[in-house]
Amino acid sequence: MPLQDFHDLADLSTEQVNALLALASRLQQHPEPRALDGKVLALLFMSPSLRTLASFQAAMTRLGGGAFVISPDMSIHGLESRPGIVMDGMAAEHIREAVPVIASYGDAIGIRAFAERRNLDDDLADREYNEMRGLVSAPLINMESAIQHPCQSLADWKTLNELGVPQNGGKFVLSWAYHPRALPLAVPAATLKMAAMRGMDVTVLRPEGFELPAAIMQQAGSLAEASGGSIRETDDRAEAMTGAQVIYAKSWSSTAHYGDKLGDEKLRRGKEDWCVTEDWFGKAAEDCRFMHCLPVRRGVVVADHVLDGPRSVVIQEAQNRMYAQMAVLHHMLAGGAA
Amino acid sequence: MPLQDFHDLADLSTEQVNALLALASRLQQHPEPRALDGKVLALLFMSPSLRTLASFQAAMTRLGGGAFVISPDMSIHGLESRPGIVMDGMAAEHIREAVPVIASYGDAIGIRAFAERRNLDDDLADREYNEMRGLVSAPLINMESAIQHPCQSLADWKTLNELGVPQNGGKFVLSWAYHPRALPLAVPAATLKMAAMRGMDVTVLRPEGFELPAAIMQQAGSLAEASGGSIRETDDRAEAMTGAQVIYAKSWSSTAHYGDKLGDEKLRRGKEDWCVTEDWFGKAAEDCRFMHCLPVRRGVVVADHVLDGPRSVVIQEAQNRMYAQMAVLHHMLAGGAA
Amino acid sequence: MPLQDFHDLADLSTEQVNALLALASRLQQHPEPRALDGKVLALLFMSPSLRTLASFQAAMTRLGGGAFVISPDMSIHGLESRPGIVMDGMAAEHIREAVPVIASYGDAIGIRAFAERRNLDDDLADREYNEMRGLVSAPLINMESAIQHPCQSLADWKTLNELGVPQNGGKFVLSWAYHPRALPLAVPAATLKMAAMRGMDVTVLRPEGFELPAAIMQQAGSLAEASGGSIRETDDRAEAMTGAQVIYAKSWSSTAHYGDKLGDEKLRRGKEDWCVTEDWFGKAAEDCRFMHCLPVRRGVVVADHVLDGPRSVVIQEAQNRMYAQMAVLHHMLAGGAA
Repeated sequence: MPLQDFHDLADLSTEQVNALLALASRLQQHPEPRALDGKVLALLFMSPSLRTLASFQAAMTRLGGGAFVISPDMSIHGLESRPGIVMDGMAAEHIREAVPVIASYGDAIGIRAFAERRNLDDDLADREYNEMRGLVSAPLINMESAIQHPCQSLADWKTLNELGVPQNGGKFVLSWAYHPRALPLAVPAATLKMAAMRGMDVTVLRPEGFELPAAIMQQAGSLAEASGGSIRETDDRAEAMTGAQVIYAKSWSSTAHYGDKLGDEKLRRGKEDWCVTEDWFGKAAEDCRFMHCLPVRRGVVVADHVLDGPRSVVIQEAQNRMYAQMAVLHHMLAGGAA
Repeated sequence: MPLQDFHDLADLSTEQVNALLALASRLQQHPEPRALDGKVLALLFMSPSLRTLASFQAAMTRLGGGAFVISPDMSIHGLESRPGIVMDGMAAEHIREAVPVIASYGDAIGIRAFAERRNLDDDLADREYNEMRGLVSAPLINMESAIQHPCQSLADWKTLNELGVPQNGGKFVLSWAYHPRALPLAVPAATLKMAAMRGMDVTVLRPEGFELPAAIMQQAGSLAEASGGSIRETDDRAEAMTGAQVIYAKSWSSTAHYGDKLGDEKLRRGKEDWCVTEDWFGKAAEDCRFMHCLPVRRGVVVADHVLDGPRSVVIQEAQNRMYAQMAVLHHMLAGGAA
Repeated sequence: MPLQDFHDLADLSTEQVNALLALASRLQQHPEPRALDGKVLALLFMSPSLRTLASFQAAMTRLGGGAFVISPDMSIHGLESRPGIVMDGMAAEHIREAVPVIASYGDAIGIRAFAERRNLDDDLADREYNEMRGLVSAPLINMESAIQHPCQSLADWKTLNELGVPQNGGKFVLSWAYHPRALPLAVPAATLKMAAMRGMDVTVLRPEGFELPAAIMQQAGSLAEASGGSIRETDDRAEAMTGAQVIYAKSWSSTAHYGDKLGDEKLRRGKEDWCVTEDWFGKAAEDCRFMHCLPVRRGVVVADHVLDGPRSVVIQEAQNRMYAQMAVLHHMLAGGAA
């Protein structure tokens, strides 16, 4: 039976991931422009988007279907999400109506809802996303929530395969990077789990104070154990990068100061040298790759010479979003892959 | 010959409505994903939208065609609509060019233009919409204007059929509800006419001062007479709800204070108890349904327990927008239905 | 081999233009709703749009494919374009990533980027557009840049053919018109070159101070020489209009005061009589046509009686945008035309 809820890559077995990736590659090489004739994907963005917006629309067109996009800023209404509220203010519509209605127009629905970043437990529990998820009975795709980003992870796994980065024994560094603002945990959490599931030896490289939440580290640890990979963390850049075949850079919030803007800012101040430069690669594998989910701040997260140089595979990663999502959609709506 | 101008459900015979509804149900059960291959629907929104925006795009995709969306806020231009004006201000384009151009890219065009709510006669005459309507020679769909909403009515008729609400003798209550702002007359006017055309015994329930315009009541009366139905109005809730099989709630402006914001506000103040609760249903038919066109303000127009309970069919109504519109589009562009 | 970069109509031979126009007419009369099955057009708007936005989406749908739209205002990110910058401000993404990623989702990409109008040489060199152009390897369509508008020119050529305006010996007037703001040079430059390539006798009619840049006049002169046409310029309206078969009106910036808002304003002040009225046509050919690319300010650029009268072909021009672009897309993506 096809997936009904693409939410966390870790919900899938390695066999299922491999089947989706095989389908993605097949659709890339052998287009099926009639596979989803007349099928509709509803796209609901509670947060802004570029890659996701474009790649999902393109994916549906390539399979012969179509998509429509709803974002709250399209409407005077605004969308209320608090339960039990008397709606006598600005918002004219509640997600309890909006989400089921939007879903009812599609054969599947994709939802994006970023972290609120007020309370760590709420975001780890994906509270806002899960409220909407509970309102949907159609096949559902998580297009990034507070703590999940399975489409990015599936695309990144495909990119790693194409680059020939080995599964077992592959050396993967997930590195914190400087950024002027506190950013969500979805990408680092999803990336860590993906690398663990793929069986790689993963190092989380981050300055003190930017440890990932324990719950995420534990889940990744279990996934690594099951796949034959490993997880460790360090703040020692040289040690982390020794022998690395991939560095995946990303900024994220401090767990200790989660939702505390000033505390987080104080902690990240002075860490501007956490910008990936060629210097970082001294002890890495010669062809060590640079990965990032984009958008990326040049000169802040990564130096131009790395991003524009041969190590960078960020465009390939972004393009693989489309192929990965085509596989998920084909699987959900036309029964492709096992 | 197919409809060229879907504007007022009352322009159609009951046979035409039934044919469209049969086509809608057929397309719901037996998709025709190639019926409108290469056909284009132009969507012009002068007012914001969620259901209409989504359901028309989904409808075209399901039939194999596509749609594009233009809303004035997409452009720095703004759209001028006053005749004979010297355009030396902000607006860089006039509807006299914009509307025919947009229509020329489509095989059909849908236009939404809400009531201006300055002058009742202008809105009853659908002045703004009709100015644009006069500029279009392509098949045209009214996506809600100052006083019409035929797509909503066709969808609601379909919903009533699905619920088994009888045509002749069916007891239908159209009830005013509280809302913090003065809202347009399009939905109550269209709903009243639909219920009258369907041959039901219709009660308009509203507090004093919120009578519907005489012209609307008279048109509905004629439609009821022709169909064997009836229309009455009252401010007595218990009497209105006795034996009711459907209550359709909607807020609307005061006719007496039309365009007079303060006068309307003063009149609606204190009427917060016009929020539909389970108490209203004491003397209603046991399975009396709750209908609303959405968006709806929870705790203001209707209580959560009604909207979330088994009486509510608002999601079904919204989904039927898509199927009703598919029938209209199929009929206009592929010759479906009689 | 098909065109890979539709940028300047003058890059094409007359034979290539004629082949594209023949294809456009064929697709207009004999739709090919499966020609671009599953093909995707990426549309990147750095500047607002109505006709271009609508006509490209409609064109793809008519050929069986689809399009997606990205505009910077869709995103919190904003797009940075300065090279070598440290991105610690508002913008979260650089065009060096955004453009290749967006292009990677399409089989072709269209880009619109208006003139910055700070520096004439930069705009004549199409600096901003060419920066993005250098980042694209997919087939690329210029949807209007600082100095090019090849889609408008191809559509206008088609319109002239349909009107029976002769190529050699056809009398074409490109006239400056009043407008409250300084406007870009793209349309007048593209129109002048188009008319020259078409072999017409072209008069540029403009008040003193509003001469077109020398580089544009020279390029048009060479094109006219090659085609057997001619170019001259004058500020004498009566002389220019004598025998004219077409007047193409458009406002543009003063070259002398380019990027100098106050200087340009001072120069255009008092020129409100450069609004095309029926008086202008006294010595013109009886059926002299009025053309404009739209949007047009009524009562400012042209009088209502001309725009609403039989001389005006502005809607036909706008509709031909769609057919011209269908030809370009069919040619690029399905190998249509030579």
